[in-house]
Amino acid sequence: MSAIKKLNASMEKHKSMLCVGLDIDARKMPQGSGADVSSMARFVLRIIEATSDIVAAYKPNLAFYEALGPEGLSLLKLVCSRIPEDTVIILDAKRGDIGNSAEFYARAFFEVYGADWVTVNPYMGYDSLRPFLNYKDKGAFVLCLTSNPGARDFQRMDIAGKSMYMHVVQKIVSWDKDHNCGLVVGATYPEQLAEIREAAEDMPILIPGVGAQGGDLEKAVQNGTAGFKKPALINVSRSVLYASSGDDFDRAARAVVERLNGEINGLRDPRSS
Amino acid sequence: MSAIKKLNASMEKHKSMLCVGLDIDARKMPQGSGADVSSMARFVLRIIEATSDIVAAYKPNLAFYEALGPEGLSLLKLVCSRIPEDTVIILDAKRGDIGNSAEFYARAFFEVYGADWVTVNPYMGYDSLRPFLNYKDKGAFVLCLTSNPGARDFQRMDIAGKSMYMHVVQKIVSWDKDHNCGLVVGATYPEQLAEIREAAEDMPILIPGVGAQGGDLEKAVQNGTAGFKKPALINVSRSVLYASSGDDFDRAARAVVERLNGEINGLRDPRSS
Repeated sequence: MSAIKKLNASMEKHKSMLCVGLDIDARKMPQGSGADVSSMARFVLRIIEATSDIVAAYKPNLAFYEALGPEGLSLLKLVCSRIPEDTVIILDAKRGDIGNSAEFYARAFFEVYGADWVTVNPYMGYDSLRPFLNYKDKGAFVLCLTSNPGARDFQRMDIAGKSMYMHVVQKIVSWDKDHNCGLVVGATYPEQLAEIREAAEDMPILIPGVGAQGGDLEKAVQNGTAGFKKPALINVSRSVLYASSGDDFDRAARAVVERLNGEINGLRDPRSS
Repeated sequence: MSAIKKLNASMEKHKSMLCVGLDIDARKMPQGSGADVSSMARFVLRIIEATSDIVAAYKPNLAFYEALGPEGLSLLKLVCSRIPEDTVIILDAKRGDIGNSAEFYARAFFEVYGADWVTVNPYMGYDSLRPFLNYKDKGAFVLCLTSNPGARDFQRMDIAGKSMYMHVVQKIVSWDKDHNCGLVVGATYPEQLAEIREAAEDMPILIPGVGAQGGDLEKAVQNGTAGFKKPALINVSRSVLYASSGDDFDRAARAVVERLNGEINGLRDPRSS
């Protein structure tokens, strides 16, 4: 099954546009849990068990696992292996390297860890993305306009009357021969999100930045999907993982996911909310 | 000691501007070696033993280690621990992520693996680089104009009469308060290298692309150092690692390093060549 079909099937089956970022941080573990790798494993696996029937995707960010050393990558492998087959795995790696090296990254994420999608950085151009896109049943979300303040430094530069991020969108559209590209656009830029949605044809958009970073959920959903006509994923991380600092963290995480699903589905069909 | 001082001291002591990329590839191992992780470990450690007194730096590219799964990161840790203290470790990671995630990457590379420098991607802007630069005794080489064909897609775009890569140079110069930034510029663009050298003040430039990728050594050295007045590193990978397919690969690697050092030192002082 292609990566986009799997993504759509997961959104449909789990009645959710949510992607849960599995960004484990020893400093934020619930009270009473340890902060060692085994405790983190138990924590993440309980989050997955408590939510996997009502989310579209999980997105572990590699940074949090790499900071734990080689053991952290064993943890990542365990986490990926426990995500149910019908739920999408997005490895948030933001890689970009010359073709020969990018091939090795693609092999790592798609073959060793079994990701369905990865995130990649466009700065090095076409041949740095090609090794990921050559996996025709896998997909790559390309950084376009990110949710952080630094997005203004290069991504929002004006190039011949058009922002850098719009040049990125157009290149990615032209490179998306196998329909396995997506885009990353921060919820912190709702107007630009609508502009990008318009130009991005049917590509899925991964939208971080709702919640802790200040993006508005309703605008992210409406603009990211063009009124529910196109695919988009809303990413949430800390607000789900650390919904409770007690041992009920998994139930609290599920409650946050249910509330967000309800809000989003209420926008789609106001009668259901 | 600051990262730039350590780099200069290593270049001086080892009489070398060379950085050797430790990009291990199972398909290219010498005949008679296995292709498992232990065999790769023996291979890389023999390369290090045979060359560490005559190179300025080693640069493992994370892609090659991550493709081996968690074991590959144990191998990376072993490799980094065996690089002598007076030789620089550059982890070629090309990371770029929002501040919170970038902090975890910085911790991984500088604290877990003991790198002196990392490579980073500028696309996400200032706050994605800051966590690396906050380690004041460590350094970050920022991708500027890379050696691959895809450099034309975004890096060479014209923005108000100036190429994207020159905007990157100027931003990095303005952000380099603690004098721990460097730039990555491919040898495949010798004229642009001279232009960047001129604008980059005293920052070290890491220059890949000589050899397999077709960059000219003499131009890379002359333009990258402005005639030996500024610091630069010439990266070589495959031509050193895979200099021989027999069991004499370590001696062959040393011979290539000696030849390249000789060529470079001959440019500095024609009487010595």
